[in-house]
Amino acid sequence: MPTDSLTLALWQSPYAANTADALARLDATAAQARAQGAELLVCPEMSLTGYQIGAAAVATLAEPAEGAMAQAVATLAQRHGIAIVYGYPEHNPQGRPFNATQLISADGQRIANYRKTHLFGGIDRTQFSPGPQAPAVFDWNGWRLGLLVCYDIEFPEPARGLALQGADAILVPTANMLAFDEVQRVLLPARALENRVFVVYANACGQEGDTTYGGLSTVCAPMGEVLTQAGRDEQLVLGTLTRTALHTARASSPLGDRRIDLY
Amino acid sequence: MPTDSLTLALWQSPYAANTADALARLDATAAQARAQGAELLVCPEMSLTGYQIGAAAVATLAEPAEGAMAQAVATLAQRHGIAIVYGYPEHNPQGRPFNATQLISADGQRIANYRKTHLFGGIDRTQFSPGPQAPAVFDWNGWRLGLLVCYDIEFPEPARGLALQGADAILVPTANMLAFDEVQRVLLPARALENRVFVVYANACGQEGDTTYGGLSTVCAPMGEVLTQAGRDEQLVLGTLTRTALHTARASSPLGDRRIDLY
Repeated sequence: MPTDSLTLALWQSPYAANTADALARLDATAAQARAQGAELLVCPEMSLTGYQIGAAAVATLAEPAEGAMAQAVATLAQRHGIAIVYGYPEHNPQGRPFNATQLISADGQRIANYRKTHLFGGIDRTQFSPGPQAPAVFDWNGWRLGLLVCYDIEFPEPARGLALQGADAILVPTANMLAFDEVQRVLLPARALENRVFVVYANACGQEGDTTYGGLSTVCAPMGEVLTQAGRDEQLVLGTLTRTALHTARASSPLGDRRIDLY
Repeated sequence: MPTDSLTLALWQSPYAANTADALARLDATAAQARAQGAELLVCPEMSLTGYQIGAAAVATLAEPAEGAMAQAVATLAQRHGIAIVYGYPEHNPQGRPFNATQLISADGQRIANYRKTHLFGGIDRTQFSPGPQAPAVFDWNGWRLGLLVCYDIEFPEPARGLALQGADAILVPTANMLAFDEVQRVLLPARALENRVFVVYANACGQEGDTTYGGLSTVCAPMGEVLTQAGRDEQLVLGTLTRTALHTARASSPLGDRRIDLY
């Protein structure tokens, strides 16, 4: 049953020292997000383990989609009555783990799992295997959602694929460095506008080793407007997606004018 | 033989009352552009006839790519020693004319002709047939160029296609209305950045019937920066494309990371 609006929270956060700390902080943040009216909490890429932790740590910490981290998140989601999108290394019997993200509903069900398909440089390639499948839209609480991870959104193709499957919003856990602000400034509004979808980009902040993440977690509305945007530091940012905005934007959608005979 | 830089001029202009007036003004403008150092002058969509002139006038004025307008432009190009991209209705023996744009070199040769593939609403559909072929990159003066027309650039697919063919710059004669500034503000920088190409968008300005064109003709550099942008009124805007900017941007190009197995 579609709802008229969806309030979500983006948890822009530094990486915790370990998974236990990350879960403890997620517990507190989920409570805070729910208290502020959010129905869904979106965390950064690899939020439960850290991102640049090295291939050995990734392999050690990797688990199946229904593993211990998933069970811990399900417990938190049920405790606070809020759905959670989190990032984790997913076990891959064929090789290096996947850089994965999963949505667990407020009643603790695993709704969708996605494995990052576009690997970014040596950071990703030394730690992860590329996801073998294009992203797929799924239904949650009356909304059609898609998941991407970080670098994926810099390519027009995966967001386009989700839009053509009918996505209302694309949720993007990310770990985008300070040097690459043009993703938030230039590409996110374009992905929203060209596809008439909401884009929800939850970034890390702070330091991880020598890397500084750039924050600026963003929600773009379907005409490309920046609905809300965080600063550089840790912050819980709220945004409300509305069906009205989708309907208005889609009255002038270019999707039906594509020349599928030429691509 | 590649040159290190290419200076071009965008002629943001209102539509003339008729083709003779448009050619007279082009004559003066080509002289001015060359005097300012431009090697290539880019005019708006349908620059020689007007854009919203009605199906009957389009049919009457339509000519083959080597027709009288092309010959007149070739004469001006040779007179002033400058290449010219102009817009015109191209005769189509199978039906309504094409909304076409053509590049004629400084020695009067027809280098490339392109027919708009993405038709915009009733304005285009009542007047034109859709171009039957995807845009193709061509070589000119050591640069690899592509042509698109107006609404085409709002879709990621045609610009991506040109980039994958090795385009250095995409030239876009356009007639974008005042209400649609998000094309210049949001989409042009994204097309440049996601493809690591220059985007050159030459818009109309002023009134044509009930329509007001929005100007803001723009050159975007290949990291998505706005290199130059006009205001609302008639203006000859110059921009210089450099190989250095392309090389720098392409050191971090995402094109090689595409998942062509998934699209």
